[in-house]
Amino acid sequence: MTTPQLVQQIKAKKSFLCIGLDVDLTKIPTHLLELEDPIFEFNKAIIDATHDLCVAYKPNTAFYEAYGLKGWQSLEKTINYLNEKHPEIFTIADAKRGDIGNTSTMYAKAFLEDLNFDSVTVAPYMGKDSVEPFLDFENKHTILLALTSNEGAFDFQTNPEVSGVSEELYKTVIKTSKTWKNSQNLMYVVGATKTEYFTEIRKIIPNSFLLVPGVGAQGGSLSEVCKVGMNEDVGLLINSSRGIIYASAGVDFAQKAREEALKIQQVMQEILK
Amino acid sequence: MTTPQLVQQIKAKKSFLCIGLDVDLTKIPTHLLELEDPIFEFNKAIIDATHDLCVAYKPNTAFYEAYGLKGWQSLEKTINYLNEKHPEIFTIADAKRGDIGNTSTMYAKAFLEDLNFDSVTVAPYMGKDSVEPFLDFENKHTILLALTSNEGAFDFQTNPEVSGVSEELYKTVIKTSKTWKNSQNLMYVVGATKTEYFTEIRKIIPNSFLLVPGVGAQGGSLSEVCKVGMNEDVGLLINSSRGIIYASAGVDFAQKAREEALKIQQVMQEILK
Repeated sequence: MTTPQLVQQIKAKKSFLCIGLDVDLTKIPTHLLELEDPIFEFNKAIIDATHDLCVAYKPNTAFYEAYGLKGWQSLEKTINYLNEKHPEIFTIADAKRGDIGNTSTMYAKAFLEDLNFDSVTVAPYMGKDSVEPFLDFENKHTILLALTSNEGAFDFQTNPEVSGVSEELYKTVIKTSKTWKNSQNLMYVVGATKTEYFTEIRKIIPNSFLLVPGVGAQGGSLSEVCKVGMNEDVGLLINSSRGIIYASAGVDFAQKAREEALKIQQVMQEILK
Repeated sequence: MTTPQLVQQIKAKKSFLCIGLDVDLTKIPTHLLELEDPIFEFNKAIIDATHDLCVAYKPNTAFYEAYGLKGWQSLEKTINYLNEKHPEIFTIADAKRGDIGNTSTMYAKAFLEDLNFDSVTVAPYMGKDSVEPFLDFENKHTILLALTSNEGAFDFQTNPEVSGVSEELYKTVIKTSKTWKNSQNLMYVVGATKTEYFTEIRKIIPNSFLLVPGVGAQGGSLSEVCKVGMNEDVGLLINSSRGIIYASAGVDFAQKAREEALKIQQVMQEILK
């Protein structure tokens, strides 16, 4: 999917919501556990109930790997279902991969070609040759971890002892990434819990899309993020996972998920006016 | 496996070799491609031919994920084979994971509990709460990326513009990691191509095990690494992947892999004297 297609979808749906499909078998409605593939059935129901309210879905691969072969199968079925039924939706493999060149190529192929996700999240620690193999794929997107939503982000990403007199690591990461080949295919993860950094980040990458986790369960504020992070093309994908998909553990889970997604979409619609 | 058990194995085998099981279907002998699970059959033959010469095996998960469900199945069969037939061998899931707390817990469970690897490689960018969930598992090991073997390591890990007047990122990562809960379960990835940094690293972590990739295809030198990196318990696991497992693409591939592993083991035996 191209960036203009994503922007068009945002404008049509009046939404820049991304729903995180982080399926934990201990949290989903128990009646699903009797089915052959509870994870996929859960995702399918959530997708059917919410696809007109969001522009992206983001399965975090950890939740699938935790169930081994069966989990990997559920992930495959989920992305295939999305690509067949809702090709207009932007799909994100939240995998946070990154390795030496030939190995990153294998990861890129797995997520962007074989599973055919529109994008994949990538960790920057190993630098240029660990990220560029992901950037090689046309009309695919590499979402680089810049400033993450968790407490540990303060350990290195914003740590002044790392940065010394020059600048904080997350800034160097973003600036450096702009020099990489095919950097037009980059987006960035910036946590909603770090709104005080958005203005600085927008100075470096005014036009890039930001994938913003941390609204909801982690405490970030949607309206705050929009105030400091939005650009002319919106430029934001706001992720919510637990707050939507676990709104109810009963048979009404998909309906309740829709209600939660609708609440967020309506706020977004107001903001977009 | 405990660290003393690993040290004991090193002394018994006179080897601190780790063999990387990075299986690429385009590089393995073509006669294997007719079998039901060529990746597992390849690994099994390599393991059968080399297990007395090495102390660890390290499948890089990228090479398995690249083959989707079938690849994941091959990984499961490989680790199960190792755990059943060679429980004395130290096993490393080279996965380079790391995410927010609850998600890292899922990854840790997947690799250290369900697949029952002895260790997993983890990326530090997201800091403390992204790594500590891995450290929770008793007699399991978390191998933190410190200074990687690739060119991109110079982008951030050793970049003076990141470090300013204080210190380079890889040093902050190693120092900080020592303050984390259960940090006794940490080992570190340090590339063989970066020998000029080993002395500094050994000042910070004199006793920790280092997993050292980059000997062979990537150009690092075994004897150089030993000179600057070895401690009283040896403290090194030297990885070789392509140089051993692709020594031949013929029907003699396992025998040729053994010959390459033996060459390295014999150098190690000399060094250990």
